[in-house]
Amino acid sequence: MRNLKLTIAYDGTNYHGFQRQINAITVQEVLENRLKKLFSHPLKILIAARTDTGVHAYGQVISFQTDSSIPVDRICMASLRYLPEDIVVVKAEEVPLSFNARRSAIGKIYRYRLLNSFLPNPLEKNYSWHYHKDLDVEKMNEAMKKIVGTYDFSSFRAAGGAPMSPIRTIFSAECKKKDEIIEFEFFGSGFLYHMVRNLVGTIVDVGRNRFSLDDFQEILEAKDRKRAGRTAPAQGLYLISVKY
Amino acid sequence: MRNLKLTIAYDGTNYHGFQRQINAITVQEVLENRLKKLFSHPLKILIAARTDTGVHAYGQVISFQTDSSIPVDRICMASLRYLPEDIVVVKAEEVPLSFNARRSAIGKIYRYRLLNSFLPNPLEKNYSWHYHKDLDVEKMNEAMKKIVGTYDFSSFRAAGGAPMSPIRTIFSAECKKKDEIIEFEFFGSGFLYHMVRNLVGTIVDVGRNRFSLDDFQEILEAKDRKRAGRTAPAQGLYLISVKY
Repeated sequence: MRNLKLTIAYDGTNYHGFQRQINAITVQEVLENRLKKLFSHPLKILIAARTDTGVHAYGQVISFQTDSSIPVDRICMASLRYLPEDIVVVKAEEVPLSFNARRSAIGKIYRYRLLNSFLPNPLEKNYSWHYHKDLDVEKMNEAMKKIVGTYDFSSFRAAGGAPMSPIRTIFSAECKKKDEIIEFEFFGSGFLYHMVRNLVGTIVDVGRNRFSLDDFQEILEAKDRKRAGRTAPAQGLYLISVKY
Repeated sequence: MRNLKLTIAYDGTNYHGFQRQINAITVQEVLENRLKKLFSHPLKILIAARTDTGVHAYGQVISFQTDSSIPVDRICMASLRYLPEDIVVVKAEEVPLSFNARRSAIGKIYRYRLLNSFLPNPLEKNYSWHYHKDLDVEKMNEAMKKIVGTYDFSSFRAAGGAPMSPIRTIFSAECKKKDEIIEFEFFGSGFLYHMVRNLVGTIVDVGRNRFSLDDFQEILEAKDRKRAGRTAPAQGLYLISVKY
């Protein structure tokens, strides 16, 4: 028995998120249904991070056990034949049997893309949040510094998430602007349901001067979702990588 | 009566090209059907350049006459309410009645995006041509220099184009690579049907050493479509701007 770790990139536009659901095509379902043909047996995959409908990934990670003897250096190319064009296996590795894509993860990097321009760009509609008001990038970076560390992130946790501890550690968080694109990057031990999108929505409220930096600090400390800003739309979010 | 010139950006993925067709949604159809609500009368628009299914635009140009008194500086924002998210009016100008989006054009810039990487990128599937073999960018640039000038481009003209003169002038043509993306840019007086995609397909054959630079010169001089390379796929092509 071998344990395989696959790194997956996908365009989330046409999927109802990653995790299997009734009556909706998900990335997990497509991977399990298509890759079982490559590995010649049913697959039960473990997933590093659930992603919502419309969220994209460059570095999602899955793991599963297999009896197949296919060499790891052939899996990426071979899987192209079985998977749709919007899901690609970008790396395949053999890992110890103890490796678990979800439980072994010690950190994740998410990036959020915002198009800050007067008019929307039709070629960006599925790949960024169009936001037309001026945003103060320096002030947003000051806000992002306040979440670096270990905190109770209840203010940025969606209702409906699993009942787990709201304590998470953010190792780094910053945003930068290039032309009309602002990218927010978050590297943390883990993230609560909708946490990145809720953080971005609130940081944008800081950037447009709806909230001061003190307001942002108070929102974090309030541990109350109702105090924070909106949930930024899904199509701007990218799972960049998972650290083990 | 006023004559309006609108510059249009669109994601061509979900349209069967620009020009009106039976039983297929085209960009022209959507513009005419939706903008007539904004201008309060049926519109018959003139188009600078037809684009095929899947081809994108940042700077398509249309013109039409109207009795509407809507100020030009309100047209971009107002049209957002009527158009789908994948078509955006990025500029609106009032022009002399003699202006005709198609006939007044004196030049067009097309860009072609190619993803030159071992594996495809699922987020690029509708926005570039994935080509995995190594390409010699310097050699492709040498080939592109050979088309600068006034030539009979019959070798790069698709069957089925309108019976017009195959003589066109290319003012500049070059390609450059940044990371894994190669961009080919063509600025010319005008382009025959499929001419840019046929040029790119043949230039790529030069880049992968199927054709020498002398072969490319002979193909151009042969005035015979059968001598040239394949037609590069539509989703890598962008109409960047139209010059008047």
